[in-house]
Amino acid sequence: MPRLKAHYRVRCSERDIEAFAQSIALEQSVEVPLEVVREAHIRERIVGAVQSIEKIADGDYLLKVALAAETMDRGRGQPDVAQTFNMLFGNVSMHANVELVDVEFPESFAQRFGGPRFGLAGLRNITGASGRALTCAALKPQGLPVERLAEICKTFALNGVDVIKDDHGLADQDYSPFGGRVQACQRAVLEANRSTGGRSIYAPSLVGSASRLLEQARLLKNEGVGAALIAPSLVGLPLFHELVSDHLEVPVLAHPSFSGGGRIAQPLLMGRFFRMLGADAVIYPHYAGRFAYPEALCSAIARECLADWDGIKAAAPVPAGGMTVERVPELMRFYGRDVMLLIGGSLLRAKDAAELAERTKTFVRGVASAGAADSATLTV
Amino acid sequence: MPRLKAHYRVRCSERDIEAFAQSIALEQSVEVPLEVVREAHIRERIVGAVQSIEKIADGDYLLKVALAAETMDRGRGQPDVAQTFNMLFGNVSMHANVELVDVEFPESFAQRFGGPRFGLAGLRNITGASGRALTCAALKPQGLPVERLAEICKTFALNGVDVIKDDHGLADQDYSPFGGRVQACQRAVLEANRSTGGRSIYAPSLVGSASRLLEQARLLKNEGVGAALIAPSLVGLPLFHELVSDHLEVPVLAHPSFSGGGRIAQPLLMGRFFRMLGADAVIYPHYAGRFAYPEALCSAIARECLADWDGIKAAAPVPAGGMTVERVPELMRFYGRDVMLLIGGSLLRAKDAAELAERTKTFVRGVASAGAADSATLTV
Repeated sequence: MPRLKAHYRVRCSERDIEAFAQSIALEQSVEVPLEVVREAHIRERIVGAVQSIEKIADGDYLLKVALAAETMDRGRGQPDVAQTFNMLFGNVSMHANVELVDVEFPESFAQRFGGPRFGLAGLRNITGASGRALTCAALKPQGLPVERLAEICKTFALNGVDVIKDDHGLADQDYSPFGGRVQACQRAVLEANRSTGGRSIYAPSLVGSASRLLEQARLLKNEGVGAALIAPSLVGLPLFHELVSDHLEVPVLAHPSFSGGGRIAQPLLMGRFFRMLGADAVIYPHYAGRFAYPEALCSAIARECLADWDGIKAAAPVPAGGMTVERVPELMRFYGRDVMLLIGGSLLRAKDAAELAERTKTFVRGVASAGAADSATLTV
Repeated sequence: MPRLKAHYRVRCSERDIEAFAQSIALEQSVEVPLEVVREAHIRERIVGAVQSIEKIADGDYLLKVALAAETMDRGRGQPDVAQTFNMLFGNVSMHANVELVDVEFPESFAQRFGGPRFGLAGLRNITGASGRALTCAALKPQGLPVERLAEICKTFALNGVDVIKDDHGLADQDYSPFGGRVQACQRAVLEANRSTGGRSIYAPSLVGSASRLLEQARLLKNEGVGAALIAPSLVGLPLFHELVSDHLEVPVLAHPSFSGGGRIAQPLLMGRFFRMLGADAVIYPHYAGRFAYPEALCSAIARECLADWDGIKAAAPVPAGGMTVERVPELMRFYGRDVMLLIGGSLLRAKDAAELAERTKTFVRGVASAGAADSATLTV
């Protein structure tokens, strides 16, 4: 029977590691002591099995546990998203000394979730960004009325930004209600595209309970909006997947809000899992911005977005979090062409619309001209 | 304008703490540098405000930030669950040195989410457990067929367990599909109740995407099932709240799966937030079981479940995670009567149905007799 292999990094004494490893295998499968499991077929097929315990350093181990794929089924061999994470990291998430660092999926398991429907290549096709990196800018600060956000949106589109997204803090507040904002910003993008011949798309932020997210998805469809922004950890990974699979026909950018802190390694969560669940682009904090993400972590996330994965498209890595127009050359050297650069506040430092247009042009040109250079290697 | 006061525990040098505090206030509101915010009303009403920075120890600070309630609205003064957590802990969750440890809500803010519809008192009314603690047992291991789970369920009910819950690992697997399991276990409980005159209730585990959770909730209603088990962190906090508020008419037990690891203090997340969002009972690991939760943390979670909170009912604390029948007296001394004791695997160590009945009786009697003693004080 097919099994997933979960890799846990465990801090534990040498004396206790074997027993602790066995307890994790039980916890993430039958959740009872082994002697309670009297049925041979449950012991053989369902109970988690410790595959290996590698010592990394004193008190620091890499533990591999094989978990039965059928425990994650929702019937007829179809894996369920919620149940997959329940079995991979449900109860052991409460062990402060355990981190989920990697997962090996059996053949065609992850593929059943679908992955990105557009991915990096699809985003290039839609926006016409061939042979270069993509650009992304954000509408903020929240508190601005709809007309002001739509003006900024138009300036970004007129000056060639590929994807214009809402700040993830924009929800359905009275000062810029979702419906009015989406209509106005979508109209602004269409007008700009008509005048430039460009193909910018707008990605409103979807946030709320399931029923509100479905309403928001319907509104996007009715308005012909070209993309969406959703924070998977905030709305829940299973709901994110269902929205993307069944209710959105446009590319989806995953936002990392509420994703930190968990003891799932960030490249695995943001890169691999978000991509597996359908994110076409994955936003994450880049080195030396507002968040203390080391360079190696940023390239690890990007590599997870881009890695070959049979049947699953590459997602666009979107480094962000306080990037500046001035850093474009450095960022392009770091990431090469297979990236979408997101710059928000640094553009909005402009004192008026003319300066905003100038800064946006500088950003867009910087990315386009770097596109002619060699691709980076993400070796950090 | 009303504001929430978020308390963040921050590890930071003395030199940097003021600037870092200010950056958090911006991050969790407008997400741009302050100079980008040119509108006076946004600076005054929307931008987060650092209220105080208290030094706890060298490099360790308690930071209080006032966040505008209107940033969490979904229009017309109604707070949105997803947006509330987005603003409280969305992006700062990615700061490894920041933990959300407390929140002060403005008047009537948390109340709008509703809290438990039944709570501890409601669970007592439904099960007839007056003047004593409640008992809870779990159906496992997964892999057993429906008939075997139903037999165990019947034995628990015949011997007076108040709430019989599915193992949280039971989903919709082929070996015990959701629909058949719910029908069989509910029938088992009803038959047992008829023969004993008891009032046991069954709490199946609901797990899956939004559409499957709604189907499962409908099936519960059709079958007249008395309770439900849901893991809020696994399905997503906003969806948990919507399910409880709009789709379930019975008490809901919150399971902690996927809740660990986050940098939200566990009593705040499992106790206060789960309760605010409608959990009638909150399951969490107790001291010296399978999880290394210190005693003080366990009583802090219980206190959050039970604390006076204007307009919001108390939830039942449900300590669990490897509790044994032998520990009942100690657990009762620790928690007193305002608790639901959950024992799973320890009951199932019984070698046959007769011994299972005996162990269950011992558990139920142990809790009932302790009910006559004084209530504990949860002072740890």
